[in-house]
Amino acid sequence: MTGGAGFIGSHLVDHLLAMGKEVVVLDNFSTGRKEYLEGSLAQVVNIDLTSDVSTLLPHFKGVDTVFHLAANADVRFGWEHPERDVEQNVVVTSRIAEAASMAGVSDFVFSSTGSVYGEAVIVPTPEDVPIPVQTSLYAASKISAESFLAAYATAGKFKATIFRFVSVLGPRYSHGHVFDFVKQLKANPKALHILGDGKQRKSYMHVDDCIAALLEIRGDTSYGVYNLGAPTYCMVDDSAGWIVDELGLDPIITHAGGERGWIGDNPFILLDVSRAKDRGWETKKSIEQSVRDTVRWISENTWIL
Amino acid sequence: MTGGAGFIGSHLVDHLLAMGKEVVVLDNFSTGRKEYLEGSLAQVVNIDLTSDVSTLLPHFKGVDTVFHLAANADVRFGWEHPERDVEQNVVVTSRIAEAASMAGVSDFVFSSTGSVYGEAVIVPTPEDVPIPVQTSLYAASKISAESFLAAYATAGKFKATIFRFVSVLGPRYSHGHVFDFVKQLKANPKALHILGDGKQRKSYMHVDDCIAALLEIRGDTSYGVYNLGAPTYCMVDDSAGWIVDELGLDPIITHAGGERGWIGDNPFILLDVSRAKDRGWETKKSIEQSVRDTVRWISENTWIL
Repeated sequence: MTGGAGFIGSHLVDHLLAMGKEVVVLDNFSTGRKEYLEGSLAQVVNIDLTSDVSTLLPHFKGVDTVFHLAANADVRFGWEHPERDVEQNVVVTSRIAEAASMAGVSDFVFSSTGSVYGEAVIVPTPEDVPIPVQTSLYAASKISAESFLAAYATAGKFKATIFRFVSVLGPRYSHGHVFDFVKQLKANPKALHILGDGKQRKSYMHVDDCIAALLEIRGDTSYGVYNLGAPTYCMVDDSAGWIVDELGLDPIITHAGGERGWIGDNPFILLDVSRAKDRGWETKKSIEQSVRDTVRWISENTWIL
Repeated sequence: MTGGAGFIGSHLVDHLLAMGKEVVVLDNFSTGRKEYLEGSLAQVVNIDLTSDVSTLLPHFKGVDTVFHLAANADVRFGWEHPERDVEQNVVVTSRIAEAASMAGVSDFVFSSTGSVYGEAVIVPTPEDVPIPVQTSLYAASKISAESFLAAYATAGKFKATIFRFVSVLGPRYSHGHVFDFVKQLKANPKALHILGDGKQRKSYMHVDDCIAALLEIRGDTSYGVYNLGAPTYCMVDDSAGWIVDELGLDPIITHAGGERGWIGDNPFILLDVSRAKDRGWETKKSIEQSVRDTVRWISENTWIL
């Protein structure tokens, strides 16, 4: 597993170990955290994934399934370092795919994003929309990585399963608006400033539901793509309300205004998850539970702030 | 213009110069040919396009329109050097885009491929098909490059126009089955061996029609995608017949058999070009003319063999 020290990766490590699997984590700890793997039985390799295929290869020998979760996930500041998405998300994925292929890996699982749909015309958005126009370097890099994995899969190198996520919440999540709001409120419990108009609609999924999908869903053919997300959405203002309530606070809430939190922010991502449902998967935790769970974990782990 | 010493690029250089434009060609002559620019008034820079953005940037200063044609176009042997497509087609495009953006270029024209449609379900294939499954590293790299250009265009960095080509024929073309067949027949005028069953359907476009599109078609929005190709197709056997006739030969023709010429070869690409037609463009030369023109040029320029 690449990115096994990250938010989603470390949960997946926990589940795989609990299932009695042997797990090798490849992570450079640039955003992953040693704390998340503390006491874990996973074999952890501190490695730069932009290394040559020959450097990566030994770590893929004897592996059945690759979970490739490592990525530059800094969507918002992509334009400040335009090479990062192409290098860390496209080139790295192509090298991991080559190493996996050379090592005879049979299953390749990849975490993509609902952002690949750009400004979605069809909402809820199914997997088979017309080729979308990319609106961020991050999403461009993710659909590029998908494309290379498709070429590997159709050439019979391995079976590839692509998951296009909405944002994921839960314990260990340390980005996004929930984290930012809690951080603001810990610094000043009397005021909360919201980017955009607070009406931005967001569909979140609990990390436990995400992990269940990563472990359980595999397609019938060599290449499968599955949307993952809650079947519903909330507004950023709803989420702010739950956060404030969970923390027992009553701050003055202000809004920066505007339809988007920031340039390139998608005003609304809601995925049609019927394809994953047909595989027997569905979210078990509501968006409210996911938000509250995240707030509770941050409150109990204030070192993360 | 990147790849200005290549087959399509050098024709485009000729046309732009004839229109009185100033042209700067960036090419490393790995597949481009000095002969194609002999006596040309274009400023030619011998440069490795995988260079850093800072090395590329000076060549984009003062430029209005970038034609980015340089690419690794070796579709067939992609699996023998899996890093080449990602490096030369994706990373390079992202760097050229960044250099163009930094230099204030207003128009970015990119040569993509009809191969991005993979095993097309809808034929003739329009631009807005459901996200296709990529079947070669080359096509994966081209749709990846498109995706990055879309992100640049939607962020307002420049206007991007993407052209998805079928195979192009005409003077200076030195790849593909027409070239291979002529080469075989020059070596042995009595025998022609055809890969596949000869029934592979192919839609070709004459380079003059291609150039007209590159020069004339621009979208109304910041990002436009246009298929380019003949509205019809031929079979490889038809093409073999025209080639043999053009050369005045009567060889024994044998077939290797099988639906495809080689693994990953698309059995049929026919593009729906109505979007380009709505812009006033259409092919003026038939596939037969294109094949015969290519044969004639090779016969008059046997040094290319």
